[in-house]
Amino acid sequence: MGPRAYRAVLIGRGNVATRLGQALRGAGHEVIAVGGRTRVAPVPQDADIYIIAVSDRCIPQVAAELASVQGLVVHTAGSVPMDVLPQRRRGVLYPLQTLSRARQIDFARVPLFIESDSDLPLLREVASSVSGSVRVLDSARRRSIHLAAVFCSNFTNAMYSMAYRLLRREGIPFEALLPLIDETAAKVHDLVPHEAQTGPAVRWDTEVMDAQRALLPDEEMRQVYTLLSNYIHNDKLRFKENQGTAL
Amino acid sequence: MGPRAYRAVLIGRGNVATRLGQALRGAGHEVIAVGGRTRVAPVPQDADIYIIAVSDRCIPQVAAELASVQGLVVHTAGSVPMDVLPQRRRGVLYPLQTLSRARQIDFARVPLFIESDSDLPLLREVASSVSGSVRVLDSARRRSIHLAAVFCSNFTNAMYSMAYRLLRREGIPFEALLPLIDETAAKVHDLVPHEAQTGPAVRWDTEVMDAQRALLPDEEMRQVYTLLSNYIHNDKLRFKENQGTAL
Repeated sequence: MGPRAYRAVLIGRGNVATRLGQALRGAGHEVIAVGGRTRVAPVPQDADIYIIAVSDRCIPQVAAELASVQGLVVHTAGSVPMDVLPQRRRGVLYPLQTLSRARQIDFARVPLFIESDSDLPLLREVASSVSGSVRVLDSARRRSIHLAAVFCSNFTNAMYSMAYRLLRREGIPFEALLPLIDETAAKVHDLVPHEAQTGPAVRWDTEVMDAQRALLPDEEMRQVYTLLSNYIHNDKLRFKENQGTAL
Repeated sequence: MGPRAYRAVLIGRGNVATRLGQALRGAGHEVIAVGGRTRVAPVPQDADIYIIAVSDRCIPQVAAELASVQGLVVHTAGSVPMDVLPQRRRGVLYPLQTLSRARQIDFARVPLFIESDSDLPLLREVASSVSGSVRVLDSARRRSIHLAAVFCSNFTNAMYSMAYRLLRREGIPFEALLPLIDETAAKVHDLVPHEAQTGPAVRWDTEVMDAQRALLPDEEMRQVYTLLSNYIHNDKLRFKENQGTAL
């Protein structure tokens, strides 16, 4: 006998709701999709699990509308503590991944961080049915990993966007940078980031840095260049001071 | 008959010299390694190619010491124009990759950008013997791709370093972020960066952003957070204004 199929209500219209819904259906669960805050259809009262995948600030409102349900109520947000949910049966199912409509993803490899004070076994079973990477994490530490994720993904992607703009001016295809982007990501599988650092700022090559800053198209990118070059330099000094033991 | 084996002199002690030397030897060339600026040994006068892989500001000095050689003289720097070399037979062999002593790399996949006004066929032959990705690029455009590379690799790695510090405080292993780092890099193979953007700044979720900024350990990281969140927001507006056609 395979794992149990649950009846799930999924509330949301965004990337997380879309990808999670596909994965839950793929794992054999019955998924009743309900649109975002402006939904008209009534929410079924007899589901096993209600998954609130709406924007952070709308979670309390949606949770309040689920006041009478008996099933487990979870949200999917990285930075929202579990206790915004008023239900006794409550939890969090946070996918630590960047999900877009325009790109398919192997959901089995999306790390899921779960939390529940009432239904951890049920939540673990549902999470494990869609992903091979499920870990328990409390609200405070989930908030920290979400913050770290903003740096590793959203801000990293902003770096790619700046590079895209720089190449576009010159008519050089962005694809020329993909091996570098891939190797930069691959390196931190083997080395901690400060050990992996290369480039003019870690060598504090002020001639190259001044010339590069002068090439940038606007003040915003010059500020980014200066701030991050200083960070790389400070990171190196911090590491030396600590004799390589800590940062 | 295989490709011709050349006699190469390689000047430098850094990551580029180390990795390039291994690749040239692996391709069957005779490589005479010469240390950095402080070398004592005399430079052989009869090599086919002299490769200057020292820090940018030392290139003119090393090139001056090679005034009497007959072979092709090239440097490996992204931001240094070819014409700093006084030789008639001159060129550039720029590897667009992040190279570290502590990590082996498949040099055959390192993109090499070459330039020469006297010996392009020879330089292309040498470059193609060590890498499957060789392209001709002039000095001005090489400078632009080097600048874009700083954003895609050095600054991206700085983002990873900040995330490392944030997780370290909480005792969460950095490895938890690797699937996110990998997917963020993989996404821009399929989507242009501004289409791939996710997170609180692109949604302009000020509640999450304010709470995250307050969690950061120092003013430098708060500045980075504010500047990059604003960039992501501006990038989105810029894209909308241009109706998706340009950035």
